[in-house]
Amino acid sequence: MSPESDSFLLHERLAMDCEEVLDWPLCRVLLARDANYPWLILVPRRLGLRDFHNLAGDDLAQASREIVWASETLETLFQADKLNVAALGNQVPQLHIHVIARFHDDEAWPGPIWGVAPALAYEPDLLASRLAALKDALRAAAAGSS
Amino acid sequence: MSPESDSFLLHERLAMDCEEVLDWPLCRVLLARDANYPWLILVPRRLGLRDFHNLAGDDLAQASREIVWASETLETLFQADKLNVAALGNQVPQLHIHVIARFHDDEAWPGPIWGVAPALAYEPDLLASRLAALKDALRAAAAGSS
Repeated sequence: MSPESDSFLLHERLAMDCEEVLDWPLCRVLLARDANYPWLILVPRRLGLRDFHNLAGDDLAQASREIVWASETLETLFQADKLNVAALGNQVPQLHIHVIARFHDDEAWPGPIWGVAPALAYEPDLLASRLAALKDALRAAAAGSS
Repeated sequence: MSPESDSFLLHERLAMDCEEVLDWPLCRVLLARDANYPWLILVPRRLGLRDFHNLAGDDLAQASREIVWASETLETLFQADKLNVAALGNQVPQLHIHVIARFHDDEAWPGPIWGVAPALAYEPDLLASRLAALKDALRAAAAGSS
């Protein structure tokens, strides 16, 4: 894996819309500030990546593993009915991978979530407890798989 | 990689909405019958997969490589402005991965494509030439990377 760039900087739009949860070997893991869905966003800490296929060699394999860690964690923690994974990034030109827990009764089911419901602000207590639970579970997922 | 199941069967909805292009080591590669976008769909030829994180071991790494092959091929062949990659599958319970070439002037830009424009039927000549070009390029992508 190529060394993390000293100058990795989270895109301002991601910084604005998300909470930072923790750093994995490759990705910074964010929680989207939208209480409609348990919604993680993985951002590889590399410079100049825009598309999933810009990931090279070991980074590609590691990104895939981290998508699995995120998916399994959300599935277990939230008893999700389905996981959605997507690298779209038409509007934010820094590669970021959505991993979203979906439920048969969520706002957008069975469609994709984008453009359906406006972001729902978290209650501060729920946000704090969710961040704490995610931090523990995501750290354990990485430790168990490495 | 576990052996392909003898009983792998493409889900009827995918069979109905797509053309088969070719088989890669892991995935069957389909072209969505929607001329709005050059849109490939990769279906791992394994039984019982629903989510991306159901891919285990070598299959996970191979799926990632095949996503890269598909993305690079679309980018080159169609001079795409952006690639979108997604495993959603809320409505079709067989794991399938969308790889879509996006353009600044396409029907849905800059949003995701789902739910925006009704599928646009291909002119038969365009479909035939696109399938032929894709088959050549996708075969070359796999050969060059193996």
